[in-house]
Amino acid sequence: MAQPALDTDLVGEPRKHVHEFHVRFGDIDSLGHVNNCRYLTYLEDARISMFFTDPLREGRPQLRGLVVARHEIDYKRPLLFGPDPVRVETWVTEMRAASFALAYEIRDDEHVYARASSVMVAYDVERGRTRRLTEAERSFLEAYG
Amino acid sequence: MAQPALDTDLVGEPRKHVHEFHVRFGDIDSLGHVNNCRYLTYLEDARISMFFTDPLREGRPQLRGLVVARHEIDYKRPLLFGPDPVRVETWVTEMRAASFALAYEIRDDEHVYARASSVMVAYDVERGRTRRLTEAERSFLEAYG
Amino acid sequence: MAQPALDTDLVGEPRKHVHEFHVRFGDIDSLGHVNNCRYLTYLEDARISMFFTDPLREGRPQLRGLVVARHEIDYKRPLLFGPDPVRVETWVTEMRAASFALAYEIRDDEHVYARASSVMVAYDVERGRTRRLTEAERSFLEAYG
Amino acid sequence: MAQPALDTDLVGEPRKHVHEFHVRFGDIDSLGHVNNCRYLTYLEDARISMFFTDPLREGRPQLRGLVVARHEIDYKRPLLFGPDPVRVETWVTEMRAASFALAYEIRDDEHVYARASSVMVAYDVERGRTRRLTEAERSFLEAYG
Repeated sequence: MAQPALDTDLVGEPRKHVHEFHVRFGDIDSLGHVNNCRYLTYLEDARISMFFTDPLREGRPQLRGLVVARHEIDYKRPLLFGPDPVRVETWVTEMRAASFALAYEIRDDEHVYARASSVMVAYDVERGRTRRLTEAERSFLEAYG
Repeated sequence: MAQPALDTDLVGEPRKHVHEFHVRFGDIDSLGHVNNCRYLTYLEDARISMFFTDPLREGRPQLRGLVVARHEIDYKRPLLFGPDPVRVETWVTEMRAASFALAYEIRDDEHVYARASSVMVAYDVERGRTRRLTEAERSFLEAYG
Repeated sequence: MAQPALDTDLVGEPRKHVHEFHVRFGDIDSLGHVNNCRYLTYLEDARISMFFTDPLREGRPQLRGLVVARHEIDYKRPLLFGPDPVRVETWVTEMRAASFALAYEIRDDEHVYARASSVMVAYDVERGRTRRLTEAERSFLEAYG
Repeated sequence: MAQPALDTDLVGEPRKHVHEFHVRFGDIDSLGHVNNCRYLTYLEDARISMFFTDPLREGRPQLRGLVVARHEIDYKRPLLFGPDPVRVETWVTEMRAASFALAYEIRDDEHVYARASSVMVAYDVERGRTRRLTEAERSFLEAYG
């Protein structure tokens, strides 16, 4: 079971979104491994891929009007520069009226480099205030939780 | 009381380290405010200033051999590009045998933009494992908590 | 003559814009000095300061609607992380109907770390095409060249 | 001839190194397209791929001990965030005793977003001075020029 993230048919296993990426040379800091700040960039790209780019490619509606309210991240192991891709696995752990929580693992087949979670808030940009999640958004998110 | 961070003589008030910085144009993302990932860079520079640069300037011993084990950050208000500096206030909230916790506010005189905390672990780089905090490190940190 | 950039009254010496900044820890790459890509960020912040922030602070009109068409940069000496500020000195070297050229030095009192130049093009964002520099823009720029 | 970079068998056409990458959301600045500074990061990753990662993957010797002395870059067209990869094509345009020049295009099948060139200098890190290119380095580079 090298890639549990892809076992989306197992009962009880949430479907995880998988975002593959390459570490850039510039992500490495003077200590020789990926700078701790850069991990959030990987999480951001995973969310963009999950909410915008993948739906766009698949002709599904995108998720828009969300803002980050909170991040937690635990660093498990230094991530180094290398030729092989790394991936972010993302899934939904909680849904409330106007917000939801995401969990992530930054990992490859062998190691978990970081575990993280975010609170995302539904936001009405025009009115400048939080709003309730729509039915369409809830059903989008339920597929991952 | 425009700058409470500097009121270090008040009984019961921990001394806070103050790191002033300027938002860079490149910190702003396509939504028009500082990208959420970039806040961790500000916290990093605050730690570097607290542990290395300020002690260097003042002829005090520096704090070395620390690694970030965990961050939590709550985003309170969008931070915009502007000519005035912003500051990170940092203080110590917990000390254990081999680790300690920092709390931070990213703020100016009017607003708090984010509150955050980190767990920092003492690390023996040569042996590649965690180590106990030294007496010198504990007394350095106690001044901020 | 520690700060030749400020000797704006010497005959024949162009007035230079001076933008002071601090190297961030995250600007340092795995080779231990400021990554070559990051120098362009310093030039960008110098332009923003020269065209937007300083005029804003001084109640002068800002320069808007400019895009970068070209950069050249020569790296002269590795730039290290340190407590002291570094500065970008910027001046105008050429003016044409719809574009102008900037020259820069990234330096401190002792060393020049890089010399660079940019071609900036006046752009009409609404019509999506280049435009002529206005008289106000030309007189703004002439003060620096 | 949509992809001239891959036509490596044509007589007189230099072999070009091709580095594919994805624009990150964080590469986009407040103007809505890839920030001009970030292009140098793409060039850097292309060089790392050409000199280190590809040779490592293919069991060929790597090119080490090179420093960037100069960049020139012309911005041709705004690069936007999107799901499709972009590529950097890189080739060698000049070889001297202790340095060489690279040319690049940042492009996809339809458009060229930027053209650039760099001067790379062979450097003896231990002695802290430039050095002559070795025969092995010259033959590595000749394959791309």
